[in-house]
Amino acid sequence: MEKESQTMARYDGRRFDELRPISFKPSIAPNATGSVLVSFGNTKVICAATAEKKVPSWLMPQSAEKGWMSAEYSMLPYATLTRKQRPVSAGKQDGRSVEIQRLIGRSLRAVTDLSKIPGHTIWLDCDVLQADGGTRTASICGAYVAAKIAVAKLIEEGSIKEDPLIDAVAAISVGLLGDRAILDLPYAEDKDADVDANIVMTGSGRFVEVQMSGEEATFDNEQLCDLLALAKKGISHILQLQQKAIKEGLE
Amino acid sequence: MEKESQTMARYDGRRFDELRPISFKPSIAPNATGSVLVSFGNTKVICAATAEKKVPSWLMPQSAEKGWMSAEYSMLPYATLTRKQRPVSAGKQDGRSVEIQRLIGRSLRAVTDLSKIPGHTIWLDCDVLQADGGTRTASICGAYVAAKIAVAKLIEEGSIKEDPLIDAVAAISVGLLGDRAILDLPYAEDKDADVDANIVMTGSGRFVEVQMSGEEATFDNEQLCDLLALAKKGISHILQLQQKAIKEGLE
Amino acid sequence: MEKESQTMARYDGRRFDELRPISFKPSIAPNATGSVLVSFGNTKVICAATAEKKVPSWLMPQSAEKGWMSAEYSMLPYATLTRKQRPVSAGKQDGRSVEIQRLIGRSLRAVTDLSKIPGHTIWLDCDVLQADGGTRTASICGAYVAAKIAVAKLIEEGSIKEDPLIDAVAAISVGLLGDRAILDLPYAEDKDADVDANIVMTGSGRFVEVQMSGEEATFDNEQLCDLLALAKKGISHILQLQQKAIKEGLE
Amino acid sequence: MEKESQTMARYDGRRFDELRPISFKPSIAPNATGSVLVSFGNTKVICAATAEKKVPSWLMPQSAEKGWMSAEYSMLPYATLTRKQRPVSAGKQDGRSVEIQRLIGRSLRAVTDLSKIPGHTIWLDCDVLQADGGTRTASICGAYVAAKIAVAKLIEEGSIKEDPLIDAVAAISVGLLGDRAILDLPYAEDKDADVDANIVMTGSGRFVEVQMSGEEATFDNEQLCDLLALAKKGISHILQLQQKAIKEGLE
Amino acid sequence: MEKESQTMARYDGRRFDELRPISFKPSIAPNATGSVLVSFGNTKVICAATAEKKVPSWLMPQSAEKGWMSAEYSMLPYATLTRKQRPVSAGKQDGRSVEIQRLIGRSLRAVTDLSKIPGHTIWLDCDVLQADGGTRTASICGAYVAAKIAVAKLIEEGSIKEDPLIDAVAAISVGLLGDRAILDLPYAEDKDADVDANIVMTGSGRFVEVQMSGEEATFDNEQLCDLLALAKKGISHILQLQQKAIKEGLE
Amino acid sequence: MEKESQTMARYDGRRFDELRPISFKPSIAPNATGSVLVSFGNTKVICAATAEKKVPSWLMPQSAEKGWMSAEYSMLPYATLTRKQRPVSAGKQDGRSVEIQRLIGRSLRAVTDLSKIPGHTIWLDCDVLQADGGTRTASICGAYVAAKIAVAKLIEEGSIKEDPLIDAVAAISVGLLGDRAILDLPYAEDKDADVDANIVMTGSGRFVEVQMSGEEATFDNEQLCDLLALAKKGISHILQLQQKAIKEGLE
Repeated sequence: MEKESQTMARYDGRRFDELRPISFKPSIAPNATGSVLVSFGNTKVICAATAEKKVPSWLMPQSAEKGWMSAEYSMLPYATLTRKQRPVSAGKQDGRSVEIQRLIGRSLRAVTDLSKIPGHTIWLDCDVLQADGGTRTASICGAYVAAKIAVAKLIEEGSIKEDPLIDAVAAISVGLLGDRAILDLPYAEDKDADVDANIVMTGSGRFVEVQMSGEEATFDNEQLCDLLALAKKGISHILQLQQKAIKEGLE
Repeated sequence: MEKESQTMARYDGRRFDELRPISFKPSIAPNATGSVLVSFGNTKVICAATAEKKVPSWLMPQSAEKGWMSAEYSMLPYATLTRKQRPVSAGKQDGRSVEIQRLIGRSLRAVTDLSKIPGHTIWLDCDVLQADGGTRTASICGAYVAAKIAVAKLIEEGSIKEDPLIDAVAAISVGLLGDRAILDLPYAEDKDADVDANIVMTGSGRFVEVQMSGEEATFDNEQLCDLLALAKKGISHILQLQQKAIKEGLE
Repeated sequence: MEKESQTMARYDGRRFDELRPISFKPSIAPNATGSVLVSFGNTKVICAATAEKKVPSWLMPQSAEKGWMSAEYSMLPYATLTRKQRPVSAGKQDGRSVEIQRLIGRSLRAVTDLSKIPGHTIWLDCDVLQADGGTRTASICGAYVAAKIAVAKLIEEGSIKEDPLIDAVAAISVGLLGDRAILDLPYAEDKDADVDANIVMTGSGRFVEVQMSGEEATFDNEQLCDLLALAKKGISHILQLQQKAIKEGLE
Repeated sequence: MEKESQTMARYDGRRFDELRPISFKPSIAPNATGSVLVSFGNTKVICAATAEKKVPSWLMPQSAEKGWMSAEYSMLPYATLTRKQRPVSAGKQDGRSVEIQRLIGRSLRAVTDLSKIPGHTIWLDCDVLQADGGTRTASICGAYVAAKIAVAKLIEEGSIKEDPLIDAVAAISVGLLGDRAILDLPYAEDKDADVDANIVMTGSGRFVEVQMSGEEATFDNEQLCDLLALAKKGISHILQLQQKAIKEGLE
Repeated sequence: MEKESQTMARYDGRRFDELRPISFKPSIAPNATGSVLVSFGNTKVICAATAEKKVPSWLMPQSAEKGWMSAEYSMLPYATLTRKQRPVSAGKQDGRSVEIQRLIGRSLRAVTDLSKIPGHTIWLDCDVLQADGGTRTASICGAYVAAKIAVAKLIEEGSIKEDPLIDAVAAISVGLLGDRAILDLPYAEDKDADVDANIVMTGSGRFVEVQMSGEEATFDNEQLCDLLALAKKGISHILQLQQKAIKEGLE
Repeated sequence: MEKESQTMARYDGRRFDELRPISFKPSIAPNATGSVLVSFGNTKVICAATAEKKVPSWLMPQSAEKGWMSAEYSMLPYATLTRKQRPVSAGKQDGRSVEIQRLIGRSLRAVTDLSKIPGHTIWLDCDVLQADGGTRTASICGAYVAAKIAVAKLIEEGSIKEDPLIDAVAAISVGLLGDRAILDLPYAEDKDADVDANIVMTGSGRFVEVQMSGEEATFDNEQLCDLLALAKKGISHILQLQQKAIKEGLE
């Protein structure tokens, strides 16, 4: 059996349920309120949380009671092997980036008590420095670390009174490659996967977002459950690494 | 028990697992290759499938072997109670529309064999005439009916040889309102729901897309399973209505 | 003579001075303040009138005394036999649409006492569902019906006190095909016409707009008079159909 | 009677049927193929005709047999007493400019045999240096002079063989101020006029365009005829001035 | 030696240190507060200064104490031998124009006491009518004359109290063609120059801007000094012509 | 004297002719052909050189003989203490960025033999991670290092044959603070400086670009010479650091 599992091992030698090496390097962008460079293998994303003393106009009437949190996601032109044109040159953001930044924003707001940042917007900027699969889930993981560091700084300087982040949040990609559920897909696996899923969970083990898509493929209930279980396992580990990174970032 | 379920009944008198009245009115836009006006209660969407004899430039090298299918989703300015500015006046499509049209496109491509429409793009246009919750799932249901009618016409006129739609596809929204899982949410329920989910399934009962989001809320494994079961039940019924509509549309 | 006129009859069998079948279907878009689906033969336009409690910024200083009325015209992508790119994808509205929506706005304002809708803007949205010539004149005819229904609703709910529409308004296309003046041109005739004219008149028989253009052709005084007489005849008939539609829409 | 007509004289002392002082100054922009500075009183427009050896993409298939002629109209920011933002700063051309440049293009094409400029586009640029009413009709008058000079140069240098301009074209504004039809309205009269009309005619006395609009007003058949007669008179005089200017420009 | 310098003379017969014929024609655009048509040989630029009673939003807090001065530069489409697309058609201003208008703005602000135009913005519009090299330096020279005329008018009408222009400002291009430093380059020389420099100086002989660029070439300290000396000589002469033009413009 | 110079020392303790600590960290973005993170004190810029096998359309006819090199410069939103909106959200690149990226492009092209990269474009992307003055000169210094590393890789993989970079290039900012010329200004000094200059020089000691601007101030010949001398000194030192970084990057 051992032999078979070895022949079936992933092209980078990982087990099917194994994460890539993960690291969080705090303070990559010192002018942000909080920042971190997050790496999942060769995927590297600059995550920065910046507080602004204003809220979107549609929130104005309630701005004394509530704040806002919003994400922006972008690929740097040299993040991919083929240079990607900047959004401002293309004239607009591509649809994929719009979809991703909406996911990041929703994921962080799900663990945030917006009434604890009245009159403030916390921006979560995620700029991909190197793309090798899983940039959206890495962005969520890094955005949480950056936000946590930013919040500590805002409390320290007296801008806000209490920590609005009421739970931790982390995310991971899982997928089906043939019949096999695999964890944390790099680009080489992602492009061949039949089903691509992104799972976001809280520190207390609850789901925030479940997104499973078959591009020119479908999946059944059992496969769905396998993917969720695999994601849960990966997220538990990431949550521990985030706590360690936040501690370091606040030292 | 009856008493309790009555007090807990939904504001429009439906049971928790009951769909709104659904209808498909074919040939709403006769210049399209196929079209339908789909209604889920007060939600009404014009769905049109139009074939074009060209493919996106990135597909060019393989255009002799493969075609493409792409969706565009838009709210007409008078679809909502407060008038919504046109995208061209706002200068760009809003993020929500971008996210929705990408979902519609992926959902239809999951049941399409693109090698059977070489050199063609089938456009799926979904324009919301009246919005009352569930516009994205209604759009997917209508787009499938429109596409099926269009494909029959393309075969008849000799543009393509075989039906590229290898399975049916339908979608429905489900949500958690407090602890209760409910089916097919109108706007009044949608805005209060803690968890909002959109499920897309094939005629053969497999998943195409599972999207569950907590906006400022989370959910556990059991709730996830309840929502999926409820969606499955609703989709079975919609699939039958679609078949009937397609038959009528082709008469 | 009868024989000759028969051989010269129009390709769809109509007489030179005959309108296509015209219908107005009210409440096509129930979330608008007033709406109607207008058909002139195969030309079908969704016309919606929506009231907004604000005025354009340039009118601000006088907004206590005066309101505004403005039109937006757009072709749905599947209105034509060849799919038409959406304005937001093209990056801007095409010149033809700009010209048409300005004409619709001026035509309706000519029969409106803006001092009777202080602080309000009434938007007239005209979205072409099927295009077969005469979409701009059909839009004007439908916009008037939608506006009249909307105004009744605004008076009923107490938003405004008096009917600002001080006269009816209707429009029709006429053209010269060779030496012959013809009424209500479908696309097949429109593309071959030497002179293309759009005439807008009030219920009391006065002109609001006279637009006659020769694209690579010219016309003399007599032809101009023939075209005006023909238009006048057609408009009289349309005005009656509008009154009937408004009555039905208000029931 | 003389006394009465004197009290009723126009604010600048002109008779009701009198044109403002008109001049054409050729070669204002020597790098254009042909150019002229046209003045109608204080209204001054730079008109330039420039030939380009390519045609719009939609004309491509017939470009060996046919060319194109297209106009662009713009107000310089300092043409009006209050500075007008440039179109590129506003993000798009205003609707009025779009409407005007389409009118200029159609007017010139009506007297042009496009088969005599195969493979070429002649651009007619009209930039308003000083605006005091009647900029669109002054633009048409100037564009014809510029085009005629350009064509002579194109024939001389061998780019084209024959003159494509088969007739002359000129335009003037007329309007109703109360009951009185007046010719060539400056801004002070234009803003108070009940009906505003722009008439374009050929050298042989035929109409090219008739545009009459009541902004919040209407007009009857008799008024329409009075306006046409007045315009015809004014245009006859302008046509003579154009011929003189063309001669000077070609010397 | 004389013979050699003759063979080396510039293609238009000028000496290396000789300016092209320069003229300033005031009041080219009478609706502007001040305006001038400046010519350097075949380079012709319309320069207009227009006062607006508002300031950019970022200056708002200090608008009671300070005003602003800003430039916009544009090529008219027919200024060059090959027609140049309008910025609004291209969708954005080209980088070269952005760079030039920022230079014009800085140059004029360097001689302006902004505290003397509180609450006002003075716009300096420079539209190139004919381009033959040196359009940016001609624009600066003309903008100063237009601004000076505008300021006199603003003082006269009581809008401002004192002249904010505390010194004169003029500019010229110099360049290296091979080893030779030459003054005031037309396009024919500019395209072949190894080093291209634009120098802006005040009436009192101080530098405002020094910009020297080698496009695919470099230069040393001695060459830099030669270019500065040549520019200084040219600017002295231009400053005298400006004073004369201002006097004429104010008569 | 020592006492005086101490009181006059710069706020960060540096001498007037002293550079900030400078570092180059290679391979910051491994998917680029060459990349480096350059730091001048707290100013940090990601510089990436990426080769693309195509040239701009205007260069097409000569693309067999020549390639192109072009720069793009952008501030990341969290580079400044107050968050800066992304260009795509603002709808266009700001004028300052346009000016800077044109300077970077010209500077690198001045030391490049474009005939040695036929058919290729080398993109130089400079994204500011932290902004504290001198971002444009740091970008030029970093872009050269990134380009040199990229070129080595292109030669190694056989894409090009010879090194197109025929000389080194570096840049530094200098300025006048009162009467004192100072080297390498951080933001705190830059915002108070009377004259702001950016000097670009080659490895062989020749000038590529000299840009000196007084914003609401001017300067004389002696000050200009002092600034150039100071810049020359700083650049000599940077050129050595660049050589060391390139060596490390190629190991």
